[in-house]
Amino acid sequence: MAELDEKRLNSYVRRARKPFETMLRRLVEIPSVSADAAHKKDVEAAAILASGMLKEAGANVKRLETPGHPLVIGRLGEDPAHPTVLLYNHLDVQPAEKEGWESDPFELAVKKGRYMGRGTTDDKGPALTAFLAAQHARAVGIPLNFCFVWEFEEEMGSPHFDKALRAEKEFLQTDSILVSDTVWISRSKPAIPFGIRGLLTATLSIETGSRDAHSGLVGGAARNPLGELCRLISQCYDAATGEVKIPGFYDGILIPGQEEIDGFLESGFTITGFKKAHGLKRLRFSETDAVLKAIWSRPTFEVHGLSGGYTGEGVKTIVPPQAEAKVSMRLVPRQEPKQIFARLRDFCKAQNGDVKVTLEAMLDPYLASAKGEHMEAAVEAMVFGFQTKPALVREGGSIGAVVSLNRLLNAPVVFLGLSLPEHGYHAPNEYFEWRQVQGGIRTFVFYFDRISRIRPLG
Amino acid sequence: MAELDEKRLNSYVRRARKPFETMLRRLVEIPSVSADAAHKKDVEAAAILASGMLKEAGANVKRLETPGHPLVIGRLGEDPAHPTVLLYNHLDVQPAEKEGWESDPFELAVKKGRYMGRGTTDDKGPALTAFLAAQHARAVGIPLNFCFVWEFEEEMGSPHFDKALRAEKEFLQTDSILVSDTVWISRSKPAIPFGIRGLLTATLSIETGSRDAHSGLVGGAARNPLGELCRLISQCYDAATGEVKIPGFYDGILIPGQEEIDGFLESGFTITGFKKAHGLKRLRFSETDAVLKAIWSRPTFEVHGLSGGYTGEGVKTIVPPQAEAKVSMRLVPRQEPKQIFARLRDFCKAQNGDVKVTLEAMLDPYLASAKGEHMEAAVEAMVFGFQTKPALVREGGSIGAVVSLNRLLNAPVVFLGLSLPEHGYHAPNEYFEWRQVQGGIRTFVFYFDRISRIRPLG
Repeated sequence: MAELDEKRLNSYVRRARKPFETMLRRLVEIPSVSADAAHKKDVEAAAILASGMLKEAGANVKRLETPGHPLVIGRLGEDPAHPTVLLYNHLDVQPAEKEGWESDPFELAVKKGRYMGRGTTDDKGPALTAFLAAQHARAVGIPLNFCFVWEFEEEMGSPHFDKALRAEKEFLQTDSILVSDTVWISRSKPAIPFGIRGLLTATLSIETGSRDAHSGLVGGAARNPLGELCRLISQCYDAATGEVKIPGFYDGILIPGQEEIDGFLESGFTITGFKKAHGLKRLRFSETDAVLKAIWSRPTFEVHGLSGGYTGEGVKTIVPPQAEAKVSMRLVPRQEPKQIFARLRDFCKAQNGDVKVTLEAMLDPYLASAKGEHMEAAVEAMVFGFQTKPALVREGGSIGAVVSLNRLLNAPVVFLGLSLPEHGYHAPNEYFEWRQVQGGIRTFVFYFDRISRIRPLG
Repeated sequence: MAELDEKRLNSYVRRARKPFETMLRRLVEIPSVSADAAHKKDVEAAAILASGMLKEAGANVKRLETPGHPLVIGRLGEDPAHPTVLLYNHLDVQPAEKEGWESDPFELAVKKGRYMGRGTTDDKGPALTAFLAAQHARAVGIPLNFCFVWEFEEEMGSPHFDKALRAEKEFLQTDSILVSDTVWISRSKPAIPFGIRGLLTATLSIETGSRDAHSGLVGGAARNPLGELCRLISQCYDAATGEVKIPGFYDGILIPGQEEIDGFLESGFTITGFKKAHGLKRLRFSETDAVLKAIWSRPTFEVHGLSGGYTGEGVKTIVPPQAEAKVSMRLVPRQEPKQIFARLRDFCKAQNGDVKVTLEAMLDPYLASAKGEHMEAAVEAMVFGFQTKPALVREGGSIGAVVSLNRLLNAPVVFLGLSLPEHGYHAPNEYFEWRQVQGGIRTFVFYFDRISRIRPLG
């Protein structure tokens, strides 16, 4: 087998800039906000565009319907003599209020190699980078089949992913899975995670009346559902330390060993860089190892929003009739989302008999080995693509699809993310950049070349 | 002095219906929401309309400017041989989101003697009722001078009332003060309160970052300002019982004696009626005396709204950069708002060094005697006006102006409210009704007649 032609690759990368920007613009201009029913048609439009892109590249494309948004899958190359890699990305995005954005979140703003807009880094930009790399791999004859899985419900917790793919097990058969939806340690330090946290999202709601009441007339005797939610949330966790107080929550969790923690500490992670990248003023902990354990290997409890009261100008002294809290928990290996949800629900009910606990979504945590041929290929590919050795870390975020794919297809998952902390996952002014596309295509093509040589056991 | 001509009074009441409805419509159509800067011009328009109404009735009118909204005051009758009564009402209103309203809150919907619209019962309707009664009293020669004080900042806690009136002490000189802005026990049981709670409103805010962060990437190490506010609020009070946990909060409060509590219990108040009137499902207490103590004689802590997180559809798993809670406390006699605010601020700061505690407004509590000539006249007037003996109670709400007027003018305050619990102070579908206007004009004219005979001591 021929060595990889780096000169040809670099020339391809240069020529890919225009088509990359054109495709990214078209994708960003569709506000594919999966969690908001008002954007149902936009998500549909994004799915149609995605199908068209895959077909144009010569793929055999299928569209899978679900009770929610569709999935688009496609095979490029069907040679049974070649191994297959499955490329997973998602093309739905987080909501984006216009406030806080320098430009319209649903128009692509291109400036000095930066691409600003909702979804540019999470995950439309990385998806296109992998897509362009796969096309070059085909063009230069790397003996590898590709299977694309493009999801449109990732940002709402992949509620239908598992079931929809189960019916397509044959079509999806693969030797390995590549996911590009993770974040580096810093601009100068790539990271390859080998474990990701799971996620459980839920709403807690309390109804104590049928309309706003006057706090002077009823205050003291009337229950206040917002106050009761504050109390309940404080019973669930200590916001000062992050410690979850739900009984059994930490039972049996996998605590990272010293070797893993040493690896964390050698990753190049710094508290200063982390705070700057995410716009955080002060953290719960001041020791680096405590911060890394907290974001990579410990489960969490968060409250994301409380509604039901008056939040306009001034103070409106009402006792609201109902209130709702949106909460979530990041889960770590050996925590079972279903069991944790039952614990949350039972605990809340025991504290406040009137609270309604509604499950929104669940994602399993995932922990792979930090070793193996695919992982070695990924490390080498990062070095080739970006001239920097990546750190092996865990990822604090959650990609539910990963667990589903790994279980369904029994193939190893490798994470080759291209996003930087400052790109602002889920934040206003989210952006991606050409530098990461450039190195990304190089990394992916190198990786495809390497894994095309891995022969399946038996 | 002649006896009151009841036939002539009743004929006046009948003829007053049209002008009452016309004036109420004009007032309700102006959304005089004082707490919202966007309605500054509307409040101004309401003040101009109010001045015009007083002038047309022949009053000597003054408009007092403040750093906020103006005050309109006017004298009708200047005979030094006659006593004076000061009529206090407010013409600003609470905000009203359109949601939950059966009709536009800023259009008057008239149906079967009911007047629906924001401000109809609080306090535009009662203000007009008193105004119409005063005009009849003048017409039939009741020897009494009237001084009107119409406020436009009551719903934002009367921040400039005290200072503005201080400069007009001479103009406002009076023998007694009549306030019509309180609520009956039930449709069949009028109430005359002799004490009202004070109010302290404040915001608690915490800033931990500069933009939304991704809870997967930062969760565990990042502080969550919403979670910290929930914790802080739970440290301030126990939402289950309403008990305030701020040290010194209850120090020296005036606890009602058995006689007063017996009076409360004889008021005709029922838990069933109270719950129905205010749309409450279940209360903190099941004993009537506990409920009455809680709403009339105990101070409170409430949380009215929490902002800063995501409250749209679905769950957006962000860690917000800042959060704010709107809170208030109803205060009882012998609680000093300034001192209570200092206690709140110091306590919050001790729990969370990063919380910013901002005072919004303060109103002193007020407790008068349940006896005296004016109170006796008020009780008789209610019996005359509505054929029912009123209960002597305390009022859980707060009218800051009352304390200012009482202190400044050294005159007794009498509360002759016309609102019913089901009218919905501050709630959607607020309404007032002709029955209360009818009885109200009768009550006020009778009261004016009686107090015109009270000679000042010395």
